[in-house]
Amino acid sequence: MPERATDLVELRRTFHARPELGFLEIETAARVIAELDGHVDDLQWGEPVCDLAGLAGLPSPDDLTTARERARGSGVPDPLIEDLGYGATAVLARVRGTRPGPVVAIRFDMDALPVTESDDDAHVPTALGFASANPGLMHACGHDCHVAVGITLGRRLAANRDFPGEVVLLFQPAEEGVRGARAMVAAGATDGVDVMLGMHVGIDLPAGTVAAAAEGVLATEKWRCHFTGRPSHAALAPHEGRNALLGAATATLGLHALPPVSGAVTRVNVGRLVAGTSANVIAAEAVLDTEIRASDDGVLADLSRRGHAVIDGAATAHGLTAEVEVTGASAVARCDAEVVEAVLSAAADVPAIEEARRTAPMTASDDVTLFMAEVQRTGGQATFVLVGGGSPAPHHTSRFDIDESALPVALDLLEGAVRAGL
Amino acid sequence: MPERATDLVELRRTFHARPELGFLEIETAARVIAELDGHVDDLQWGEPVCDLAGLAGLPSPDDLTTARERARGSGVPDPLIEDLGYGATAVLARVRGTRPGPVVAIRFDMDALPVTESDDDAHVPTALGFASANPGLMHACGHDCHVAVGITLGRRLAANRDFPGEVVLLFQPAEEGVRGARAMVAAGATDGVDVMLGMHVGIDLPAGTVAAAAEGVLATEKWRCHFTGRPSHAALAPHEGRNALLGAATATLGLHALPPVSGAVTRVNVGRLVAGTSANVIAAEAVLDTEIRASDDGVLADLSRRGHAVIDGAATAHGLTAEVEVTGASAVARCDAEVVEAVLSAAADVPAIEEARRTAPMTASDDVTLFMAEVQRTGGQATFVLVGGGSPAPHHTSRFDIDESALPVALDLLEGAVRAGL
Amino acid sequence: MPERATDLVELRRTFHARPELGFLEIETAARVIAELDGHVDDLQWGEPVCDLAGLAGLPSPDDLTTARERARGSGVPDPLIEDLGYGATAVLARVRGTRPGPVVAIRFDMDALPVTESDDDAHVPTALGFASANPGLMHACGHDCHVAVGITLGRRLAANRDFPGEVVLLFQPAEEGVRGARAMVAAGATDGVDVMLGMHVGIDLPAGTVAAAAEGVLATEKWRCHFTGRPSHAALAPHEGRNALLGAATATLGLHALPPVSGAVTRVNVGRLVAGTSANVIAAEAVLDTEIRASDDGVLADLSRRGHAVIDGAATAHGLTAEVEVTGASAVARCDAEVVEAVLSAAADVPAIEEARRTAPMTASDDVTLFMAEVQRTGGQATFVLVGGGSPAPHHTSRFDIDESALPVALDLLEGAVRAGL
Amino acid sequence: MPERATDLVELRRTFHARPELGFLEIETAARVIAELDGHVDDLQWGEPVCDLAGLAGLPSPDDLTTARERARGSGVPDPLIEDLGYGATAVLARVRGTRPGPVVAIRFDMDALPVTESDDDAHVPTALGFASANPGLMHACGHDCHVAVGITLGRRLAANRDFPGEVVLLFQPAEEGVRGARAMVAAGATDGVDVMLGMHVGIDLPAGTVAAAAEGVLATEKWRCHFTGRPSHAALAPHEGRNALLGAATATLGLHALPPVSGAVTRVNVGRLVAGTSANVIAAEAVLDTEIRASDDGVLADLSRRGHAVIDGAATAHGLTAEVEVTGASAVARCDAEVVEAVLSAAADVPAIEEARRTAPMTASDDVTLFMAEVQRTGGQATFVLVGGGSPAPHHTSRFDIDESALPVALDLLEGAVRAGL
Repeated sequence: MPERATDLVELRRTFHARPELGFLEIETAARVIAELDGHVDDLQWGEPVCDLAGLAGLPSPDDLTTARERARGSGVPDPLIEDLGYGATAVLARVRGTRPGPVVAIRFDMDALPVTESDDDAHVPTALGFASANPGLMHACGHDCHVAVGITLGRRLAANRDFPGEVVLLFQPAEEGVRGARAMVAAGATDGVDVMLGMHVGIDLPAGTVAAAAEGVLATEKWRCHFTGRPSHAALAPHEGRNALLGAATATLGLHALPPVSGAVTRVNVGRLVAGTSANVIAAEAVLDTEIRASDDGVLADLSRRGHAVIDGAATAHGLTAEVEVTGASAVARCDAEVVEAVLSAAADVPAIEEARRTAPMTASDDVTLFMAEVQRTGGQATFVLVGGGSPAPHHTSRFDIDESALPVALDLLEGAVRAGL
Repeated sequence: MPERATDLVELRRTFHARPELGFLEIETAARVIAELDGHVDDLQWGEPVCDLAGLAGLPSPDDLTTARERARGSGVPDPLIEDLGYGATAVLARVRGTRPGPVVAIRFDMDALPVTESDDDAHVPTALGFASANPGLMHACGHDCHVAVGITLGRRLAANRDFPGEVVLLFQPAEEGVRGARAMVAAGATDGVDVMLGMHVGIDLPAGTVAAAAEGVLATEKWRCHFTGRPSHAALAPHEGRNALLGAATATLGLHALPPVSGAVTRVNVGRLVAGTSANVIAAEAVLDTEIRASDDGVLADLSRRGHAVIDGAATAHGLTAEVEVTGASAVARCDAEVVEAVLSAAADVPAIEEARRTAPMTASDDVTLFMAEVQRTGGQATFVLVGGGSPAPHHTSRFDIDESALPVALDLLEGAVRAGL
Repeated sequence: MPERATDLVELRRTFHARPELGFLEIETAARVIAELDGHVDDLQWGEPVCDLAGLAGLPSPDDLTTARERARGSGVPDPLIEDLGYGATAVLARVRGTRPGPVVAIRFDMDALPVTESDDDAHVPTALGFASANPGLMHACGHDCHVAVGITLGRRLAANRDFPGEVVLLFQPAEEGVRGARAMVAAGATDGVDVMLGMHVGIDLPAGTVAAAAEGVLATEKWRCHFTGRPSHAALAPHEGRNALLGAATATLGLHALPPVSGAVTRVNVGRLVAGTSANVIAAEAVLDTEIRASDDGVLADLSRRGHAVIDGAATAHGLTAEVEVTGASAVARCDAEVVEAVLSAAADVPAIEEARRTAPMTASDDVTLFMAEVQRTGGQATFVLVGGGSPAPHHTSRFDIDESALPVALDLLEGAVRAGL
Repeated sequence: MPERATDLVELRRTFHARPELGFLEIETAARVIAELDGHVDDLQWGEPVCDLAGLAGLPSPDDLTTARERARGSGVPDPLIEDLGYGATAVLARVRGTRPGPVVAIRFDMDALPVTESDDDAHVPTALGFASANPGLMHACGHDCHVAVGITLGRRLAANRDFPGEVVLLFQPAEEGVRGARAMVAAGATDGVDVMLGMHVGIDLPAGTVAAAAEGVLATEKWRCHFTGRPSHAALAPHEGRNALLGAATATLGLHALPPVSGAVTRVNVGRLVAGTSANVIAAEAVLDTEIRASDDGVLADLSRRGHAVIDGAATAHGLTAEVEVTGASAVARCDAEVVEAVLSAAADVPAIEEARRTAPMTASDDVTLFMAEVQRTGGQATFVLVGGGSPAPHHTSRFDIDESALPVALDLLEGAVRAGL
């Protein structure tokens, strides 16, 4: 089906050229809607499928304004900008088969990264002219591919309803920072779902290789911690200040000194610290961006408790108040054997797949796990499928790319699994 | 001489309403030039009296551009903007007396602070309508008064040349951050000066009180320290990173743990720390703004050596490189007894002075000390005079103000000292 | 009175040769008792004048046993060993004058230091054969002189009762660590006292110089802080431990980062840290010996609060419990003008005094201030007199010595002041 | 062979009752010699098989003296005390078979731990009366069993020479702290060895279960780090000190903040810190006992480099010198498939073995790996065999015990492997 593959590639390149950060995917979501409208049975977007209430880690009002301006400049209609332009950028599409069967949901994440794309001609998107047109932003994690596959899958299934049950395509905002899945779960996006699938391209696998289950996905929490003290003149009244910068430095060392856990993989990182205003003032404010990760949800919970204690202790020691916002969260990936088998079986029918592994390591974090956990909590099953992309450079770097032969592989594998009733 | 006082007050209010940050005092310097042109014997400005070569701590190109735009909007002529609009904002004016005598230089600093002025009607400048018109900027240290006194002194002396020797008025940029004096000294502004005077209003003294010598002025250095490491993915390859944020936190704790010095006052403060980009990346860059102060130049030098060792050690420990820029510097104030006596004698002839102290404490830093030290190094003498201003709030805060009766006090005292031949 | 001076010197040398640590001054106290018994009107020792209830910072049972053994070997009678051998080593002697007058108390501290005395022949006690006979212990702070002066003063006053009021000689244990005065105050040693005098030899003054008031004496608290965590195997279960060593390190850096205080002298030092047992076990216990000092009692109280917060915060951060014992305490020295004048007047009558200063700096701590504060609290007056000793090396070092000409100076000055009715 | 088992158990209990610390195993080694003398073909001990030159981590002279006294009291002959009583406590015994074959070396470690044995009657050694007679010392890691098995194996093989090649029994001192193997390797104990076997009882396996290869043994280094600064009076001259305690605290936080390594297990622990003398002195000395571990020798080497940098950086920051002694070292365990198969095959012939696993985890460290690595380096093969002991409490705790049915299992397994020619 070469023309489908061509469509798929064109779509991917279109998305690749227009990267948008998390919760700012206005143009991306608008294009998803435009491509699926009229094909699928149900199409929802914005707040009805994306509940932002109580979330931290959202873009600033200025960022939202800028994103709306850009989307308007790209021709997104005003009503859609009103629906999508305040953070709630999720899209949900539903296609029903002609036979009874399970409700299968598949997650496609849409956001890009604050990475400047390589302008080297050896970088394929640059050489072929579809590199990022948005300076400082790049699809450096393959989500452009995900969106293209999701749209094409929706149209194929709509065109041929010969499959059991129904399929729910979840176009998720803000996977980076593990922020968007919470909003969609909160809006009930997985209600009634029997089988939940995630799919990610790349992940150090060669093109032609797939894995039916990701192994070693780390549960994570992302924190923004605010320390508040009291300013004072550093020479005239140093003792009247309460030094938030010192508290933040102490918390940083304490967090990085949290011990490893036997039998588990853990990670702690304070990745950003901004404190104080100038050398001659005791710093009254400090912000710490921290993440914790673990290969076990219980271990993560324990690490979270200990990390909070470190922050509280630093605040106590330096006379500060501390507040921790959870700006992102995800769980480990539990992949159910039955679904894994079904994916392996589907893979056997895709000629372009040279090797189908049961599992492959994916030792990062992804909030598709929140969809998975929610479906499993209500009695369903799940897996997180990996599709090799032969990337010449690591995820999140300026030369990351995906061998486009991975696109039909992903598409055919998902379609096959759906048609086989998983 | 009420009309003189009135002029002086009007001038002060004009400057108060138009605050500009250090090295950006384009409009201020232009007004100084306009007010003195035609009166004084010699008037120089810009690079000839302000050598910025090798200085750190200068404004960014963007800040300079913004400042030039504002000055242009305020009617500063283009040639002056070209002269003054790239950081070299100093002005030097010279008035010769009719009799032989010493060359006396007096420093008047011109810059304001990044403080938002109070909009409370209890705040006099707000009540009387001359509060800052530049949002976020404020003359919260009395430099507006200094400039007004300097201009008026120049015009008075020019109008009546019956004094010995000559007077050099040094309108200095960027006293905040102790940056500007170095540039003027480097340009030779104190060449040939026999007596150097500094004058500061406020300093917790009541209006009507003056002190002929500041006591306890702290020598200082301001540092901007850059740590450079290596980024890496915090989950996938934490060991491949070299963590500049951890290095900066370690340096911060080490700097704040530098010991006190018997018999001296010392201060160390890391007032600003900016490191890293996001929670999931090992931070590769960190910037630390630090100041050290001491009541003795030798103690400051020792503190500087130890502080550098702390920074170097933190870099070594965390596999980083560290670079320290000195963005500001000043010395302690050594006030010569002979000049102090002369000022006290002049004070006795100013009726508005209720109390003239030999010394008063001024336990902050001021780079007028660099002018003083340079003049003393070449055989001259110096003092740093304080003029009470009855301030209702501390220096550098949004309700700082000066009782305007201090203005003629300062003016008459300086004029008297000059005419008496110091 | 050369033979008195000779006695005085002999006494001092005797004490110098037999140094004992704080609360272990069994032999010293026994000799004080023996020298004064039969001369003075009232002589008390042990628990009646030394209330140890609730004190931390006492010697260990083993140390007490060793000290009793040594005292027994030196011929101290068993009943005295029972009275003095369990920490309560204070002695109080009272001599009444023939005329009405104030009750004047004078403190003489008795303890030595854990310093090994120099065996260099240039060190006078070594050259003359009266260096410490107790290895590792030394009278390196002049308390040997104090005790000799106190005894001789008591005998002189007893021999000639022509003075007003009465004199109370307070032979205090454990001045080092500022521990012993609390015990004597608690036992009521200053009850009824009108004038309290402290006297210290040395303090960087030349022999022949005295000062009627010590200036700059720092209030202090000494803390022993115990952190308790949970041990675990460092490789098999690092996460099961709660690391007291890490908590202690964090507290150390936090304590040393407490800010200076404008207008005051402060000191913070963690001088001893003992934590953990071996490299392969997460350390479950840590002990931190810390002192804080300040030139103002209120500043000390604030520093104490902040220091406790640092310790509590470190405990919270690392999942530990923390307990702080106050092992020593003293106040600043407030010297009353009236008493200071009286001492100066007495000094004028001592020919050997070449210079009598009103004040001299003594920027260490001494718990004679607790006696002073208690007497002042109940309406009395006080001062702390310094007597120059021409020491060739600093206090607390192995070559510290006192020019013995200082002994009659101290004695005559105190006697003169007492006889003059202060 | 019940009487053999009885001997074995008696031997084990004898050793259990007389625990000795590393390099102090005088009585233990003397008993090994006595039990094997006259049976084996070659018997060497002391310096010829134990080269201590250049080793750190040795007992103090006082400890050695005490150990010699105890051994003398236990009846060890004076010449043996001279040979064994200065640290070189290793014993090597050689038994030759009647047929040609490989040289097989087996390591039996002899040292006990500074653990106080439980006096609870539920603790078998206490109930049966063979608990430690040496207060504060305990065989809490099963080395008593190892020695008993080694002796019995030597006697059995000597009694029946029907086996190929020859067997070298290595009775190693000081496995705790991974110190002794280095000394024996340095003395050439593995010269000519073709197959190296380690054996350890316990390790969380049930009695009746063995594993032919330990998996996950961590390479390690143990460090003793000395920081040297300069003392000074904490109140009078804090700035003249160079604070080793602060340096040690900084190093501790830096070491614990070393990042994890992707794909490897690592451990870092500062387990002991002793610094300073008293609260009022800037601490001039600090000692840090640290261990690092890794599941890969290269990762350990990298961790070692980074740890040294942390220590050097802390020294630089605080003006100290730092010296790191390596007091112990071991490698990961590489177990050769051929030897593992041979052990499994031998296990199949031991009826008491209920389960023989190919591998079992042993995520601690053991310096038998140095023997293994040396033999492998010279072309030989190796494995580290685990023999379940059904321990009721973890290794290194006061209730650790071994089900004595493990003793004949270990013995029969090793004998079988040797007789089968491995």
